[in-house]
Amino acid sequence: MRRAVYPGNFDPITNGHLDIIARASTIFDEVVVAVGMNLGKSPMFTAEERMDMIRQACSHLPNVKAAMYTGLTVVFAASQGASVIVRGLRALSDFDYEFEMALTNRRLDDTIETVFLMTNAEYSFLSSSLVKEVSSFGGSVEGLVPSVVVDFLSRKLR
Amino acid sequence: MRRAVYPGNFDPITNGHLDIIARASTIFDEVVVAVGMNLGKSPMFTAEERMDMIRQACSHLPNVKAAMYTGLTVVFAASQGASVIVRGLRALSDFDYEFEMALTNRRLDDTIETVFLMTNAEYSFLSSSLVKEVSSFGGSVEGLVPSVVVDFLSRKLR
Amino acid sequence: MRRAVYPGNFDPITNGHLDIIARASTIFDEVVVAVGMNLGKSPMFTAEERMDMIRQACSHLPNVKAAMYTGLTVVFAASQGASVIVRGLRALSDFDYEFEMALTNRRLDDTIETVFLMTNAEYSFLSSSLVKEVSSFGGSVEGLVPSVVVDFLSRKLR
Amino acid sequence: MRRAVYPGNFDPITNGHLDIIARASTIFDEVVVAVGMNLGKSPMFTAEERMDMIRQACSHLPNVKAAMYTGLTVVFAASQGASVIVRGLRALSDFDYEFEMALTNRRLDDTIETVFLMTNAEYSFLSSSLVKEVSSFGGSVEGLVPSVVVDFLSRKLR
Amino acid sequence: MRRAVYPGNFDPITNGHLDIIARASTIFDEVVVAVGMNLGKSPMFTAEERMDMIRQACSHLPNVKAAMYTGLTVVFAASQGASVIVRGLRALSDFDYEFEMALTNRRLDDTIETVFLMTNAEYSFLSSSLVKEVSSFGGSVEGLVPSVVVDFLSRKLR
Amino acid sequence: MRRAVYPGNFDPITNGHLDIIARASTIFDEVVVAVGMNLGKSPMFTAEERMDMIRQACSHLPNVKAAMYTGLTVVFAASQGASVIVRGLRALSDFDYEFEMALTNRRLDDTIETVFLMTNAEYSFLSSSLVKEVSSFGGSVEGLVPSVVVDFLSRKLR
Repeated sequence: MRRAVYPGNFDPITNGHLDIIARASTIFDEVVVAVGMNLGKSPMFTAEERMDMIRQACSHLPNVKAAMYTGLTVVFAASQGASVIVRGLRALSDFDYEFEMALTNRRLDDTIETVFLMTNAEYSFLSSSLVKEVSSFGGSVEGLVPSVVVDFLSRKLR
Repeated sequence: MRRAVYPGNFDPITNGHLDIIARASTIFDEVVVAVGMNLGKSPMFTAEERMDMIRQACSHLPNVKAAMYTGLTVVFAASQGASVIVRGLRALSDFDYEFEMALTNRRLDDTIETVFLMTNAEYSFLSSSLVKEVSSFGGSVEGLVPSVVVDFLSRKLR
Repeated sequence: MRRAVYPGNFDPITNGHLDIIARASTIFDEVVVAVGMNLGKSPMFTAEERMDMIRQACSHLPNVKAAMYTGLTVVFAASQGASVIVRGLRALSDFDYEFEMALTNRRLDDTIETVFLMTNAEYSFLSSSLVKEVSSFGGSVEGLVPSVVVDFLSRKLR
Repeated sequence: MRRAVYPGNFDPITNGHLDIIARASTIFDEVVVAVGMNLGKSPMFTAEERMDMIRQACSHLPNVKAAMYTGLTVVFAASQGASVIVRGLRALSDFDYEFEMALTNRRLDDTIETVFLMTNAEYSFLSSSLVKEVSSFGGSVEGLVPSVVVDFLSRKLR
Repeated sequence: MRRAVYPGNFDPITNGHLDIIARASTIFDEVVVAVGMNLGKSPMFTAEERMDMIRQACSHLPNVKAAMYTGLTVVFAASQGASVIVRGLRALSDFDYEFEMALTNRRLDDTIETVFLMTNAEYSFLSSSLVKEVSSFGGSVEGLVPSVVVDFLSRKLR
Repeated sequence: MRRAVYPGNFDPITNGHLDIIARASTIFDEVVVAVGMNLGKSPMFTAEERMDMIRQACSHLPNVKAAMYTGLTVVFAASQGASVIVRGLRALSDFDYEFEMALTNRRLDDTIETVFLMTNAEYSFLSSSLVKEVSSFGGSVEGLVPSVVVDFLSRKLR
């Protein structure tokens, strides 16, 4: 059985993330969406809220589960018995950052392979921070995020 | 009549910005230089000071005016009756950011088109933050910013 | 009146080109789609065929016309009384090439401004050469090119 | 069982290719290294020679086989019962080309997913054309290609 | 005699920095590794600690010395009698930032030339912030930094 | 004494090349401008004509000389007693190509270091092929190339 970890902040999960999760779920036997709790920047949503949104948005994908982690991604992946880290690439991705992370992770644990999938072109401009910015100015994010996230955002911004 | 909005922080306006404004003023009937007041980071100059510098630097361009705004750029553009958002591209631009913004704005309001103009090559390295950094270390910014900005900077840094 | 020239090879016109033409036609009073005949590489379609496809694909846009030209683009634009050259940018564009062309054209005639519009994200991968490659292998290009081009391609490849 | 196709020209196979093949062979149950015969440019080695070099270089990887194909990659992949196309990314890759291909392939057959793996950093500069250029000038390519390729090259260039 | 300045934060020095220093020391008669004290962000190590690590890591390079500076890099370089600023490029460098700095420095003092050297490919992913991030999560940085830095890091993080 | 080789096609030399040569001549004791004769593409000017133009354009730089070579650049550099290869970077350079070449040359001979200098921003769009294209359409290239090249071009295109 091949298990993959898909790490990120998911603050909140977008339709671009969901697109990658769905693709990964057809390639790997199990996908663990892993909410990182490391970043210094204060997130809009707590890790529990982010997990909650992921679970609801992925409820139609039986081989996907959500988890929280802190520390090194490769250590978490190994602890889950995963041999693959999944990352999404957009045409507008920060390739340098993605490559730095992947090469570092390989150096830290070369038994875990980073695999890049390509997001749907219509989501090429989409990021969590964009969703938060548009939302905070009262713009609609319907179609950019799962409907559960629309609810969470409107509650948070009320 | 075609009105265009040129949004930015202009903290302060540089000769690169001025170059784009002058070019836009020959293509569109009216250009509104729109000073954004959204950003979390604290600017060096108040929105009023930034407007003041823009007005003085553009006094030779009769179809250019300055305005402040908060919230979504497309909403401001629509409120001004503008059908075009102008952005400058430098060879060293952050294309990804520009594309993300343009695609997002299109999604929020597809009646407003983003139009990119190219800065003069001699300004390819020029940015407001660079001007502030060089100034704060006592370097000269003559030739990089309109002369009114030289005055504002020296007063601010005194 | 502001007239714009949109130069290219259009061998053949794609839905990405058509998207840019439609956008330009809302910003400028007249758009001349200019089929270049300079390139050393032998095109799949003659200049006349390319003009024919453009005309049929743009028949719903009354302020768009097609023309052929040889020589420098800025000289052709000036001969048409155009003050603007339009270019489309895709997220996957060759920015360096676009910048080189725009800066060269500015140097050759600084009264003509190059204006960049952004293609719809769903066409970010689309190019004429791709269309020809897919076609030649028997793949379907429906949805990638105007329907008139589908006909021209199938006749050419028969 | 998950089968992956790794398409390319492999003219000739390099240690960078071999690195990607070995990584793919740990993620997928079977990897088909697919030698494309489409390109207009005349290759240095015949498709049979390229297959021969691949087979010898991969003889230690039991779940890897070589094949030739012509036409669309997705059609070949489907004919092999493969659900994944593997591509290697180098820090110096032509991302735009890779993205164009992947988005086109997805459009042609959305049941086949493109998966990108990252080449070892020490091969970031390595390409088949470089190997041929260095070889043709009498430079050593030891360490850049499998040893079987060194032999093929020296025979070809004799 | 040609003296070169290699400016940076070196918070802390990595094997990638050391690689550039060693290369520069073969090209120029003297290399001054210049620890910048300007940045708003609070560094992990004091300027003195950073100098100390540089001196120990470079003790085998007789024509290399360390210095601290504040203010404009070109002013510091001139004060040292240096005619060259050295910068390292990685395949994953932020070229735009490097170009902006180099063009700005040229504008501020055109008698000082910026010279770019290329880091060893195996360090293409390596940065000081990565070293700190990996360290803080308990990952090993052996092989990424000089051994003296391993000691400093473990003391700092204890 | 430090001797540097500046390799290229110089078909023909442009003001961008000349800018790099002048900068290199202040950093190194001797600069050999090395006209490559390897490329399959047929050049516009013979190697002798290219050398002739270089010599005339650089006659004011006493420590610059021109030479022709074939084969590997590092072998030529070593034969000249040079320890440095100089390359110019423009904001619009093909970085990937430059990096591939530099890493390959380092692998072939690690005693020779590639050093990158940055072209003047006003030449960021300038290339030999652009000069030839503009010239062939009757456009003026004054200011883009040394005056000797204007003469050579007009004679060649007559």
